[in-house]
Amino acid sequence: MSQSAELTIEIDAYLERLFCLNRSLTGEGNRQTLRILSEIAPIETKEYPCSTQVYDWVIPDEWSIRDAWIKDSSGEKIVDWQTNNLHIVGYSEAVDRKVSFEELAPRLHYFEDNSRGIPYRTSYYDRHWGFCVTQIQYEKLRSASGKLDVFIDSDFNSSGSMTVGEIKIAGRKKEEFLVSTYLCHPSMANDNLSGLITTAILARAMLNRGVPEHSWRFVFVPETIGAIAYLKFNELAMKTVRGGFVVTCCGGPGALGYKETYIADHLVDRAVRLAFRDRNIEPLHYRFVPDGSDERQYSSPGFRIPVASITKDKYYEFPEYHTSLDNLEFVCGAQICESLTVYEDAIRIVDENCLIRTRVPNGEAQLGRRGLYPKVGGAIGQSAAFGDDQDNQQAQLDLIGWVLFLADGNHDLIAVAERSKHRFRAVQSCVALLLEQDLIELIPSSQAASTARVN
Amino acid sequence: MSQSAELTIEIDAYLERLFCLNRSLTGEGNRQTLRILSEIAPIETKEYPCSTQVYDWVIPDEWSIRDAWIKDSSGEKIVDWQTNNLHIVGYSEAVDRKVSFEELAPRLHYFEDNSRGIPYRTSYYDRHWGFCVTQIQYEKLRSASGKLDVFIDSDFNSSGSMTVGEIKIAGRKKEEFLVSTYLCHPSMANDNLSGLITTAILARAMLNRGVPEHSWRFVFVPETIGAIAYLKFNELAMKTVRGGFVVTCCGGPGALGYKETYIADHLVDRAVRLAFRDRNIEPLHYRFVPDGSDERQYSSPGFRIPVASITKDKYYEFPEYHTSLDNLEFVCGAQICESLTVYEDAIRIVDENCLIRTRVPNGEAQLGRRGLYPKVGGAIGQSAAFGDDQDNQQAQLDLIGWVLFLADGNHDLIAVAERSKHRFRAVQSCVALLLEQDLIELIPSSQAASTARVN
Amino acid sequence: MSQSAELTIEIDAYLERLFCLNRSLTGEGNRQTLRILSEIAPIETKEYPCSTQVYDWVIPDEWSIRDAWIKDSSGEKIVDWQTNNLHIVGYSEAVDRKVSFEELAPRLHYFEDNSRGIPYRTSYYDRHWGFCVTQIQYEKLRSASGKLDVFIDSDFNSSGSMTVGEIKIAGRKKEEFLVSTYLCHPSMANDNLSGLITTAILARAMLNRGVPEHSWRFVFVPETIGAIAYLKFNELAMKTVRGGFVVTCCGGPGALGYKETYIADHLVDRAVRLAFRDRNIEPLHYRFVPDGSDERQYSSPGFRIPVASITKDKYYEFPEYHTSLDNLEFVCGAQICESLTVYEDAIRIVDENCLIRTRVPNGEAQLGRRGLYPKVGGAIGQSAAFGDDQDNQQAQLDLIGWVLFLADGNHDLIAVAERSKHRFRAVQSCVALLLEQDLIELIPSSQAASTARVN
Repeated sequence: MSQSAELTIEIDAYLERLFCLNRSLTGEGNRQTLRILSEIAPIETKEYPCSTQVYDWVIPDEWSIRDAWIKDSSGEKIVDWQTNNLHIVGYSEAVDRKVSFEELAPRLHYFEDNSRGIPYRTSYYDRHWGFCVTQIQYEKLRSASGKLDVFIDSDFNSSGSMTVGEIKIAGRKKEEFLVSTYLCHPSMANDNLSGLITTAILARAMLNRGVPEHSWRFVFVPETIGAIAYLKFNELAMKTVRGGFVVTCCGGPGALGYKETYIADHLVDRAVRLAFRDRNIEPLHYRFVPDGSDERQYSSPGFRIPVASITKDKYYEFPEYHTSLDNLEFVCGAQICESLTVYEDAIRIVDENCLIRTRVPNGEAQLGRRGLYPKVGGAIGQSAAFGDDQDNQQAQLDLIGWVLFLADGNHDLIAVAERSKHRFRAVQSCVALLLEQDLIELIPSSQAASTARVN
Repeated sequence: MSQSAELTIEIDAYLERLFCLNRSLTGEGNRQTLRILSEIAPIETKEYPCSTQVYDWVIPDEWSIRDAWIKDSSGEKIVDWQTNNLHIVGYSEAVDRKVSFEELAPRLHYFEDNSRGIPYRTSYYDRHWGFCVTQIQYEKLRSASGKLDVFIDSDFNSSGSMTVGEIKIAGRKKEEFLVSTYLCHPSMANDNLSGLITTAILARAMLNRGVPEHSWRFVFVPETIGAIAYLKFNELAMKTVRGGFVVTCCGGPGALGYKETYIADHLVDRAVRLAFRDRNIEPLHYRFVPDGSDERQYSSPGFRIPVASITKDKYYEFPEYHTSLDNLEFVCGAQICESLTVYEDAIRIVDENCLIRTRVPNGEAQLGRRGLYPKVGGAIGQSAAFGDDQDNQQAQLDLIGWVLFLADGNHDLIAVAERSKHRFRAVQSCVALLLEQDLIELIPSSQAASTARVN
Repeated sequence: MSQSAELTIEIDAYLERLFCLNRSLTGEGNRQTLRILSEIAPIETKEYPCSTQVYDWVIPDEWSIRDAWIKDSSGEKIVDWQTNNLHIVGYSEAVDRKVSFEELAPRLHYFEDNSRGIPYRTSYYDRHWGFCVTQIQYEKLRSASGKLDVFIDSDFNSSGSMTVGEIKIAGRKKEEFLVSTYLCHPSMANDNLSGLITTAILARAMLNRGVPEHSWRFVFVPETIGAIAYLKFNELAMKTVRGGFVVTCCGGPGALGYKETYIADHLVDRAVRLAFRDRNIEPLHYRFVPDGSDERQYSSPGFRIPVASITKDKYYEFPEYHTSLDNLEFVCGAQICESLTVYEDAIRIVDENCLIRTRVPNGEAQLGRRGLYPKVGGAIGQSAAFGDDQDNQQAQLDLIGWVLFLADGNHDLIAVAERSKHRFRAVQSCVALLLEQDLIELIPSSQAASTARVN
């Protein structure tokens, strides 16, 4: 079985195990989720106490729910939370009461078209209770005779905490990048179980490759409040993070897409575009808007960390979004693998990118005596005369030419790939060869000089 | 009657009263014109003495004309200045003589096609006399038997002066903008009676709105020499004017247009483009060329004030240009109102634009506890589920998101409008709301930091 | 006979005389070539000793060849170097031996299609010998019975030298530009006899015009090693050369083309584009790639001299490239003249370009009292009324307007030509007129201020 087929099966298994857990801003569902994801990569969990002020926000009480239902007067359960977490408005308070349909109606959320399933609704910061139901359930409740029996067994614990997960990988250089995903959406597969699993596997892949060039942190947080709290608890470190990704909605059946960072041509953007280009994929391109996911937090004026997302059915863009139809029929391991592959490439490019400087600045290097140039010259560029070997040799020479020409300490590997149209991996191989020959040196981007421009 | 219908009637009345006055570089016609325009807004007039050196120029003597005609030998007036100011080459000296047609011919200006009317000609800096006539008049003069009786009763007063008008409106900030128009064209409606009336009404509108944010000066000068003299007499102040408008040719029947400033993407350009965009008008776009009107003076190397023009039948672009056909059949109040509206919007945008800075820089602000976010979440972006109210709410949230995201002290209201695609007025309302909530502060552009870029 | 017809005939004569000389990296053929080119312009030759280390390279031994052939067993010469220099792999060592076809085959270079002629091959830095033959010769050798008699009478002299040619022309300003061409290709007319002759004539033309504004050096070097050695022997001077041209492949029957500098919008690029524009030619446009000619040396990170090429059948782009078909049927004087003309224009533009500053910065200059404005005004822009004279006058006024408007010390003549759409020569005439009137001054680009921007 191929590695990719194995990975697909593995992801499918995690989708099954994780889908039904009741994730929210806080609570046991989140801890269970992180525990299972820890099987993939060593997630360290942190507990942030409830009521902590985090910038403009306060961490809410920890919410627990044990059961919830609506019965008609005959005792039949018309709505049962045990069958789908989405039936309850997130953070609903406890209730145990007989009510008329009229009393209940304002607390019912449903789509007028039954084919859209159950909507996803929350009320984190206003004490409230409510149910989300299908259109058929709504009709049943409306036509039920007599009072309806409404029951929610939940509570709030102000001594509880909000759980976040973190994997920090120290690299050769201190300069740090971020991969963040969010943990708070229950029983929806693309938004955002796909992101959780993808992030865990990305962390594992990086750990398996050995020490990375740069430092990375993989972060699993409840959306918004979790990211804000994470920024607050890691303020100093986060103020110097150079860029990153917010992993969300990357497992649908639709086309691959890319939401740019707020800078639009940041290193992270250049890496993502190159990753797609090297795979001959033209992704859907989403311009930056502040509406979205945790780029709202990471890229906020106080932090301005540029973050991009690689998507497969981006939030807002698919009809199943925030409904019970965003389920395991919509998402599968094979689809997640497609995004994962591009993410892995993009992260590698970000990580392994560096500036290059020639050790032979004056005139070109003599490649011939280093075995890098054909012994008999004259045929280069004479394309009609080339057989296959010569094609390869010419491509190799072309790439060596670009690397050495751009190697003035101001150009990075991505620039070479962009200008030469060679793949990033080919550029890396070429750079390795030239390093071996002591023809170039690598320099960290922080030491970039600003001299002659090669556009 | 609507405000706009009233305005149309008002403008039509001023067109009638002002059209026949004999405007020139100097003279009583200019003073009468400014006196009438003062009914609209309080124009202060200045008299600049003749013979004053103003940079490379000298203010010419004040010119007066009382009568002028050409009679044939039978005493019939073939050309009569009393019927149209354009019949005389501007600044013609006195003459009272009998001449043959051959002697007269070099002093006659006419179009070979009678349908083009009378041409407009001047000779300000070379003592000269001449007549401008229709092709039919020309033929009559040519075929007249005997000598022609030529009469011009004019004189030059070296103790006179050149008159300019000025309205200065002090704003909350010292930073100053300019609206300039020219006064010297007699008996042509689009060029430039339209500009004179528009400028006066723009000044009135600004005064009626109360103290503006920035300081403004509205200037009525003879073209070229008047603008140059104004720069000379106000050199210090004018060297710091930040931008402005030259109001000309804005009352024709053609399409609205916009001539950009020499910088092309100055604040003034951005404001004009936004004003048009917010009204869903795609104006004709004229690239900057130094040929034109008083941008030649204001934008000259020594001052470099970027000025734009909003036009409706721009000079050079309509066949009636500089002829007697640029008259009150060509121009009317309703047409002027169209340009005026865009000018008012553009000027307001320039005036009220400012930089914004968030008071909640780290992570996003919690809108919910300020009543700015729906209590039950999850539906945002789920567009199929939105009714009309939700659409509005989502648009509002979208705009709040843009304002707070861009509020890093480096972005102005125009940038928010450009990026978010919301109207400038909507941006202003949103900013007012967020100011009320103490979520942002406004800062003058002079205090702009240059930190993180949001493109 | 026209000057251009004379030039065509002259070039044709030089093509005939120079084509058959056996040029290489070193040797008598190069010296003969420079001696003949010296009839056109006074080339000073330099001898760089063999074995000299020049940056990453070593100047190779001087190669001489007196005869070479392959005979079959009957004594018939199947390949004879005397008929075409290309028959020998450049820098072949001596051999005098009877060999079987099988032994010889790896040392034979040929095209499988006889119609492509003889290939051009070299082996400068690996001692080697070999022959380049047509496909028919190859077949004859293969089918020859018995041993083949192989003979090359060549030697290497380590006490010899590599010859380069140079014409230095001191200009009014020290700032220096470069025109370089390469000398090492034997018996190919477009690559690069066309470049050699063109460069010599360009130097002559400059000398004939009198002292240029800037300093220029015209350089004739073997490609690669020659340019590298020249850089090494002139390191200090070359580190400050501002830009230039590499003259190559400019005599084919195809379309004119232009390979941009590595900067792509350098002064040199702007000059070349303007030269083409002013002749209404839309050249083929080749983006910069480091593969090519001696831009690899001059633009290397240590020197970064931006160099462009004007081409007519650029290397790589024509099927005769690096074959015996790149001959005098492919190239002729008339074709070379076409490139030459554009080169002359581009070089003049580079040379004569300068920054301009007005002496009347405040407001516009009064052109009327200097006789530069029509005495009777009002007709400007009134295009339908213009006869031919007025057209000219209006074009002249338009250009004066642009020059004076842009004359802030930050804009050069090229910028005026670009913005105004007037020809460079027209801009120069206008500037001369305004200099006469003391309205502007010229300033060297090194004194450019960086104040107001006019885009």
